[in-house]
Amino acid sequence: MTITLSDLITVEPLDTSLRETLQHLIDTRTKPPGSLGRLETLARQLGMIQRSTQPRVVRPAMIVFAGDHGIAHEGVSPYPQAVTAQMVANFLAGGAAINAFSGVTGLELEIVDAGVATPLPGVDTSKLVSLPIAPGTRNFVHEAAMTREQAIAALAAGAARVRHHAALGTNVIGFGEMGIANTSAAACLMSRLCGVPIDECVGRGTGLDNAGLAKKRNVLAAALARHADARDPIDVLATFGGFEIAMMAGAYLEAARQRMAILVDGFIATSALVVADALSPHVRDYCVFAHASNEAGHRRMLDHFGARELLTLDLRLGEGTGAALAVPLLRAATAFLNEMASFESAGVDDRSERGR
Amino acid sequence: MTITLSDLITVEPLDTSLRETLQHLIDTRTKPPGSLGRLETLARQLGMIQRSTQPRVVRPAMIVFAGDHGIAHEGVSPYPQAVTAQMVANFLAGGAAINAFSGVTGLELEIVDAGVATPLPGVDTSKLVSLPIAPGTRNFVHEAAMTREQAIAALAAGAARVRHHAALGTNVIGFGEMGIANTSAAACLMSRLCGVPIDECVGRGTGLDNAGLAKKRNVLAAALARHADARDPIDVLATFGGFEIAMMAGAYLEAARQRMAILVDGFIATSALVVADALSPHVRDYCVFAHASNEAGHRRMLDHFGARELLTLDLRLGEGTGAALAVPLLRAATAFLNEMASFESAGVDDRSERGR
Repeated sequence: MTITLSDLITVEPLDTSLRETLQHLIDTRTKPPGSLGRLETLARQLGMIQRSTQPRVVRPAMIVFAGDHGIAHEGVSPYPQAVTAQMVANFLAGGAAINAFSGVTGLELEIVDAGVATPLPGVDTSKLVSLPIAPGTRNFVHEAAMTREQAIAALAAGAARVRHHAALGTNVIGFGEMGIANTSAAACLMSRLCGVPIDECVGRGTGLDNAGLAKKRNVLAAALARHADARDPIDVLATFGGFEIAMMAGAYLEAARQRMAILVDGFIATSALVVADALSPHVRDYCVFAHASNEAGHRRMLDHFGARELLTLDLRLGEGTGAALAVPLLRAATAFLNEMASFESAGVDDRSERGR
Repeated sequence: MTITLSDLITVEPLDTSLRETLQHLIDTRTKPPGSLGRLETLARQLGMIQRSTQPRVVRPAMIVFAGDHGIAHEGVSPYPQAVTAQMVANFLAGGAAINAFSGVTGLELEIVDAGVATPLPGVDTSKLVSLPIAPGTRNFVHEAAMTREQAIAALAAGAARVRHHAALGTNVIGFGEMGIANTSAAACLMSRLCGVPIDECVGRGTGLDNAGLAKKRNVLAAALARHADARDPIDVLATFGGFEIAMMAGAYLEAARQRMAILVDGFIATSALVVADALSPHVRDYCVFAHASNEAGHRRMLDHFGARELLTLDLRLGEGTGAALAVPLLRAATAFLNEMASFESAGVDDRSERGR
């Protein structure tokens, strides 16, 4: 089944018809009103997304998309490009942080090769979903990272992976990424689509020093100037994006179409959401902003969405790690709504007027 | 076996001999150094507490202590005192928030009657640990809440419950509480032991309005003035505390003695830690400050310990709910340390000097 761009961007607004019913259920659980704070907001959002007064977390899944970036050749990362392939092998062997966190939080983990540039080191690739658009993007200092056709193909491929999980029952999904130099791509997407000066979008990534940071800023400022005419969301994605970012953008769109709760990870994952949001603004209604990354710029991106994150743990790793850590909070939100007694059913006195 | 106060306050400082070894292990996992943020600090702390480079979360437990307060008769809570007993019944029936969160996070949950004033409504009490010191404390506006002997008995009883769980293998433990009006007791403990003016310690508790809040402040200021001579930690605990708070204080002491990682919940739970800390300052080394409560004063208490919380979810419920939600983060911290590959073992290139 072909997924077209016009299909993809057709996302329904969140159905808010259960809002009052959910709020009443939340308020009559045996606790002072509002005392579960952010979890109450989360329970209400999950209920509206699932159109249910008994929302559940079913087969939560994490898709990690990996791809390489031509911009890496500008020396904007302290790690060599081969690390992308090496880390994909590490994911497949179960040795990365997202493997550990998926185990702890009960996430189904899938790794997608969206366009890795170098051969994978010897490792069992039977579990790899191999959908490379090309062996890495082109260097956007010189030319657009990909063609419009490649961008659209990547959006569709990301969406197709979400459909796969939807068919297996998944109703909560997160997206992670791996791609050396992809904070550079994300910073350019953010700058152009959010209208934020590039210096405020650029951070140290995996660990640039001051000289490296200054160089990265100069390289990216020049690239943005060179591609001043790229303004349409698809053009911006094609110009600065990566294949893993484009697949994530398509995955967000499809996940919202499938009425999944979407766990938004850090800087790069959120840059993909910026693209999806530019294409279809209702996607954000389905998003749970899992954490605030320590990568400079992520806070500003969260502000762009008017979002407040669930977790602030000073993470800056990517891979979907921050999104994974939010899964237990979603389970807690659904558990209190579904399992707690009401004041009436438990025979607990509600507040008197005494002392108020 | 009798637990004496002098035993209880003998807490060893944290053994930091593994600090460098742990840090090296953390830094050589396949991720940029420091990129797991707070979880790296947590992994190191758990390793030092357990004196192991492979710390684990084993049989995590939550003990909820319930007790009533004579100060409730001053109308300092919007809920009637009977709610303490009703909520104990709700815990036993599985209908409270801490039941839901314990289920989600895999916590062994135990409910202790430390001194509830009113009879429990009809409910199966076979799982209740019934250790009441007395049917509620006295009203500390007029007289000390309890005798020194009662305070010490409560400390010992709390410690004994921790020994029970230690014998079953528990190495991570949290303490929660239920007791109508216990934010008033906690505020007085905090004010006297931390040297903070009472107005900065008093909050709305379960939901006081402005008039109720003003009244609560006046009542507590008068009580503190009346008991100006209570300065020794045991005297302060006996004067203003509750049986549930005293048991929690003893539980903290014993948990540190057993080298458990201790999950610190919100305002009242932290007030009990203030007492334990005044008795034995090494207890705090074993503490993980799980969350920042929305109850006014809790942030100031965290500052007292120089602590930064893991979670900021605007909770203000008590029962150990915030502590419970931190358990998955402890599991994640131990999982990344134990399960992630090193750069060397995974064949992943570490940072080059390029671009730094």
